[in-house]
Amino acid sequence: MATETPETTETAPDETAGYTQPEIDVAGLTRLLDGRYAEMRDLVRKNLVKSADVLEQAETLDIPAFKDLVKDVVVEVAATGQTAVAFPSEYGGSDDTGAAIAAFETMAFGDLSVLIKMGVQFGLFGGAIQQLGTKHHHDAYLTAVISGELMGCFAMTEAGHGSNVQALGTVATYDVETQEFVITTPHDSAHKDYIGNAGRHGELAVVFAQLEIGGTSEGVHAFVVPIRVDGEPAPGVRIEDCGRKMGLNGVDNGRLWFDGVRVPRTALLNRFADVTPTGVYESPIENPNKRFFTMLGTLVLGRVCVGGAGINASKVALAIAVKYAARRRQFDTAPDQPEQLLLDYGQHQRRLFPLLARTYALHFAQEVLASRCHDVFSGVVDDEADRRALESRAAGTKALGTWHGTRTIQECREACGGAGYISKNRFEALKADTDVFTTFEGDNHVLLQLVAKGLLTGYASDFSDLDQLGMVKFVAGTAVDTVLERTNVHKLLERVKDLLPGGDEWDQEAGLLDPNFQEAMFRFREEHMLSGVARRLKRGVDEGMDAGEVFSRVQDHVIATARAHVERLVLDAFVEKVVEMPAGDNKVAMGLMVDLYALTTIEADRAWFMEHGRLTTQRSKAISREINALCRKVRPVAVDLVDAFGIPPEVMRAEELLTWGD
Amino acid sequence: MATETPETTETAPDETAGYTQPEIDVAGLTRLLDGRYAEMRDLVRKNLVKSADVLEQAETLDIPAFKDLVKDVVVEVAATGQTAVAFPSEYGGSDDTGAAIAAFETMAFGDLSVLIKMGVQFGLFGGAIQQLGTKHHHDAYLTAVISGELMGCFAMTEAGHGSNVQALGTVATYDVETQEFVITTPHDSAHKDYIGNAGRHGELAVVFAQLEIGGTSEGVHAFVVPIRVDGEPAPGVRIEDCGRKMGLNGVDNGRLWFDGVRVPRTALLNRFADVTPTGVYESPIENPNKRFFTMLGTLVLGRVCVGGAGINASKVALAIAVKYAARRRQFDTAPDQPEQLLLDYGQHQRRLFPLLARTYALHFAQEVLASRCHDVFSGVVDDEADRRALESRAAGTKALGTWHGTRTIQECREACGGAGYISKNRFEALKADTDVFTTFEGDNHVLLQLVAKGLLTGYASDFSDLDQLGMVKFVAGTAVDTVLERTNVHKLLERVKDLLPGGDEWDQEAGLLDPNFQEAMFRFREEHMLSGVARRLKRGVDEGMDAGEVFSRVQDHVIATARAHVERLVLDAFVEKVVEMPAGDNKVAMGLMVDLYALTTIEADRAWFMEHGRLTTQRSKAISREINALCRKVRPVAVDLVDAFGIPPEVMRAEELLTWGD
Repeated sequence: MATETPETTETAPDETAGYTQPEIDVAGLTRLLDGRYAEMRDLVRKNLVKSADVLEQAETLDIPAFKDLVKDVVVEVAATGQTAVAFPSEYGGSDDTGAAIAAFETMAFGDLSVLIKMGVQFGLFGGAIQQLGTKHHHDAYLTAVISGELMGCFAMTEAGHGSNVQALGTVATYDVETQEFVITTPHDSAHKDYIGNAGRHGELAVVFAQLEIGGTSEGVHAFVVPIRVDGEPAPGVRIEDCGRKMGLNGVDNGRLWFDGVRVPRTALLNRFADVTPTGVYESPIENPNKRFFTMLGTLVLGRVCVGGAGINASKVALAIAVKYAARRRQFDTAPDQPEQLLLDYGQHQRRLFPLLARTYALHFAQEVLASRCHDVFSGVVDDEADRRALESRAAGTKALGTWHGTRTIQECREACGGAGYISKNRFEALKADTDVFTTFEGDNHVLLQLVAKGLLTGYASDFSDLDQLGMVKFVAGTAVDTVLERTNVHKLLERVKDLLPGGDEWDQEAGLLDPNFQEAMFRFREEHMLSGVARRLKRGVDEGMDAGEVFSRVQDHVIATARAHVERLVLDAFVEKVVEMPAGDNKVAMGLMVDLYALTTIEADRAWFMEHGRLTTQRSKAISREINALCRKVRPVAVDLVDAFGIPPEVMRAEELLTWGD
Repeated sequence: MATETPETTETAPDETAGYTQPEIDVAGLTRLLDGRYAEMRDLVRKNLVKSADVLEQAETLDIPAFKDLVKDVVVEVAATGQTAVAFPSEYGGSDDTGAAIAAFETMAFGDLSVLIKMGVQFGLFGGAIQQLGTKHHHDAYLTAVISGELMGCFAMTEAGHGSNVQALGTVATYDVETQEFVITTPHDSAHKDYIGNAGRHGELAVVFAQLEIGGTSEGVHAFVVPIRVDGEPAPGVRIEDCGRKMGLNGVDNGRLWFDGVRVPRTALLNRFADVTPTGVYESPIENPNKRFFTMLGTLVLGRVCVGGAGINASKVALAIAVKYAARRRQFDTAPDQPEQLLLDYGQHQRRLFPLLARTYALHFAQEVLASRCHDVFSGVVDDEADRRALESRAAGTKALGTWHGTRTIQECREACGGAGYISKNRFEALKADTDVFTTFEGDNHVLLQLVAKGLLTGYASDFSDLDQLGMVKFVAGTAVDTVLERTNVHKLLERVKDLLPGGDEWDQEAGLLDPNFQEAMFRFREEHMLSGVARRLKRGVDEGMDAGEVFSRVQDHVIATARAHVERLVLDAFVEKVVEMPAGDNKVAMGLMVDLYALTTIEADRAWFMEHGRLTTQRSKAISREINALCRKVRPVAVDLVDAFGIPPEVMRAEELLTWGD
């Protein structure tokens, strides 16, 4: 062990050799980002500008008035056709899931209460009726749902059970005499909680409840239940407003209790299971677990959308912070010189540019996810394994995209100093409204466990089950050999060597900017972590620990593995996108972003790479120097890179920051 | 380079050997935390309970009404004597700076608008009059300031200049004819900004301005200027409210413009400099730079207080999250068992317990800082070097304490899931109100640069100068040899070897829980980083780069060095406290906290230690395993550890979380 390593010069040797500063074609880069749905994104931009006042009104109206305003905006936007696209054409839609996702993502540039209320109404509520219901329900509701005339709820989460949906407590008992279901909240912690549209505007709710027929439980199913009639709670329904929240106060979240509420037999959303008039339970899917996760799986869109929203909210924060730092000066650097621009400080570049690169990377990973989602929902792909891979990818991208949002918005707020604290400079709403993204639509840690489980079980049919008990048993039982075989270290190294020449020393010879090196590092980490998790799970069970204890002790490793996997998917998506670009300055700039994303991701986990023999200490330090050099190359194009996001100035607000020094 | 390292068992071998689970005496631990000022802290707890309603009213009142309420609470608390203690006894105080800091810290358990308005009124405004003024000013104002009858502002920050105070633009020109100063805002970006008490309640302001006499500028000085008379802006003064902020909306921040406002010659706060009637400038401190920083230095209390507030706000968040996780169950672990408690999940322990340990560590570091501050302010210590070391320590503790607050509150919010998003569960206010702590009273990055500068220059007399240009020149010039000499690697290793036996291999033989090992690691990192910064600064200048460029490139290293230094001070303070404790279970529990703080700090920077030859990969992994083992030991005492903070339940709110399952 060396006692001392000499400092080397900080400038990477190839920092300028053969490198020409790119001049970005901003409009071209916006086209690249907008992709296939540029037209839809432009429609949304127009709608955002029209309703831009809502960002200010969020601060001036009282909460009930703001909720009503947000509802009005949702209905106005619906009238432009923007929100119908995911629905079938016979109800006014265009069967275009991809366009719907693009619209949602773009709406995240604006007020996020409007966004989330749309997500509740058209995604969760409308989506549940469409995906879990059949023609009867579609005919009855979809037209009014799409226009916003009929507002509704997605009543899944309960106070006692958030992420663990399978354990929820609400009961729907079939009464064969009257051919009705009786919906009941059996104990207080089984009340529905945080339900959007329940507090004020919802008339109907899709209620998830344990179906009981003749004393037998058939598991969780969804029912259409009226909760409000003429503005008053429906008979047997108790409604409470959730009260003030940290953010998203334009969304009327509420709590629901059901006291023997009777709905007709046809209120069951019966695409995957039905009850005959005489009380016989029927389903084309035999395995109850599989049935449950098939139902849940149709709701993957929510996670896809929230992840995209987190990524796009990050863009707003970065655009403000980067543009401000390119104008704001502070502290002298030399006598008789103007003070130095914030963006010329190395530390300021280090704070903002890696987040910018990760935002670009996540954007293109989200584009791949949305496209897969579109293919599955439009029937282009109809394979069960593909569906499961999509669910896993949605879970992972949601977790990384929303954590990235929280982190980026915070860093950008701090980078704007005290001015970032003033509400009209936009960060208040960005921070407060996005904060819940990391824990709703599935808590991020639980979602990453879902991703890891998919990897460990090879997407076995019950992989979506969130229960760690099942996973531990499955992995420790039959699956571990498969995983160990698959992630066998020698095979792993073989696969990596396919990417890079150089034998076992593949990681020492390659250039840090060699895409194969970056890819090999990401893959090595993911697969090595995965095999470690499998072995630790098996060892724990073999040593006689109970499944809960085994899982608890391996949990941090499980989550790290999932994160490594998703970060690799993100890299792949970004690299693939850039490879396809025609040669030119925009491609050079995107290349900087890829390198910065790849190297900062490796740097953040460089201890792991050293611990696992894949980074020498010298090479680790070289990566940090290379990142600093990349930041200096990004500096001159940083403003163009955020301008390319195409955020309408009307929704950025922050006038004081964006016109600083004018 | 090894291609593969085998996984070892995760349980540290000595996890249970010779270890008996401590039973915490909670009241005793509270006494330890409360320390010398237990009585004052108990008075504050009583005052907090009396005004606990303000936490709810923050959500229900409109902003102007909330501001008025907060003012009323401040005046009520003042009536209990709590806020007078820092002031001289002749004006009703008790000359007890330490008690004043303890009071402020404890107030941070409650509504933070009340806290910050108190800080503005009694700390910044009152403190400036006391510290920068003389008997004339004390007699004229202090009694009314202490009672809250005369509300005032500390008008330093300008829109154009926040952290760089020396460059501010407001001008005070001496008019020898009338023996007045004429206060003027010469251009728009020189208006005072974010000034507490300016928006609504302040009648007087201590205004910092460039003093000009007969065309000569004498630098920044402070003047007492009336800004409001009978509720209306004073003649020549323009006031704007800052508008809605992300948080702290009970504080009336405002903007001030001065258009030739005339104040008498005695309005100059003349402790460190005066102007004679005929316009002769006089000061006992010859060097203008030194004079400026002597004035600023008297204001160190503000930073001490804000850092303490960040630490105590973290306690509130942790108390809620830990107590909730000890009640809330989610997901099965075994058939026929109740669902598992959140706090029994390894990942959940990993999220919360290292933050808990760091909170304890920062608490005791803050106690040392407050005690040094007390000694300097009460004249027990009156050495210039001590004052500078105090300023540096205050800057560093403020940075670490407030970043810790932001991070801890966020993690705790997420750990409480959707419930953490509901305002009455307390996190909204904690997050929004504390957010600005990281950038006010000195931006944290700028403050850490100040710390590094002190280290690099050996607290040379102009060390407080925030200008990086001066630092680069100073270090690259005369100071570098001293620093290099001081941090010479061989000497450094000698010093470390004093702590640990074992020759050059000191770090490989020692137990991970050996306090000397932990200390040696912290010291090695700090001193090695410091010498690296000195060498890089010198090399940059030698290579002909301009000072700004040199600084920009070394800036991340500068900040990392300061952080390493402060983290070592924190460790030392914590260890010293625990060493003094009598043997017993509380000491065992504090020992767990010390180890957890030390090892998680090393773990977070383990890449650096590996890069610099001070951690083998095996030992690095062993540290992570040891941390997991420590977390399991903390688990049974975690609730006691947060109960010991002594936070009144009335100000915790979060009833739903704290009584979960009852």
